[in-house]
Amino acid sequence: MLGGAAIAKESGAMEEALYGLIGKMKAQPGKRAELIALLTQGTSDMPGCIAYIVAEDAKDEDGIWISEVWRTRQHHADSLKLPAVQESIAKGRPLIAAFESFVETRPVGGVGIDG
Amino acid sequence: MLGGAAIAKESGAMEEALYGLIGKMKAQPGKRAELIALLTQGTSDMPGCIAYIVAEDAKDEDGIWISEVWRTRQHHADSLKLPAVQESIAKGRPLIAAFESFVETRPVGGVGIDG
Repeated sequence: MLGGAAIAKESGAMEEALYGLIGKMKAQPGKRAELIALLTQGTSDMPGCIAYIVAEDAKDEDGIWISEVWRTRQHHADSLKLPAVQESIAKGRPLIAAFESFVETRPVGGVGIDG
Repeated sequence: MLGGAAIAKESGAMEEALYGLIGKMKAQPGKRAELIALLTQGTSDMPGCIAYIVAEDAKDEDGIWISEVWRTRQHHADSLKLPAVQESIAKGRPLIAAFESFVETRPVGGVGIDG
């Protein structure tokens, strides 16, 4: 299996590559569990969401990592308009101390991205 | 849904938390697609692997991100002994320029971690 762009070209139909995000945020001290509960509560019905993995940083007690895979960039953008997601964001914002890192990716293979 | 450790306590059976890894590596210039093909070829039969998402960094043309979720830390350790994985690692090593970042996580919720 080749890189994202190559897959798109190879499949002829100029199929749009999957869209991914990997980011780390810091919860306010002592608020990680509460923030994680909010981050995971609105995620069961997000069209085009293949993976949205919320994880505690094993060493940083305030650190939360989110790895996402979406069918397309647009599916991700549309998810931000969903009422359940907007509610989670609004409730979660006061519990977030900082966004430490954030990258956009093109998921291209492996396990758990068939969706 | 609460944090990893809380889930373990709450479920009473001291169920071990899931084990996760998020890392970025840099391919040798021009070798990313070849390295990705190696990284994804040996992944179809890794017991306890819930997610192993290989993605191109959208901005860094040599950057590869891997987000992993394993049933347990031991399942991940055991996977490194699988012939197919050892073969991928051996073939891939010359194509790797650097390991840029690497964190261990406890995946606790979201989409795509039911496995």
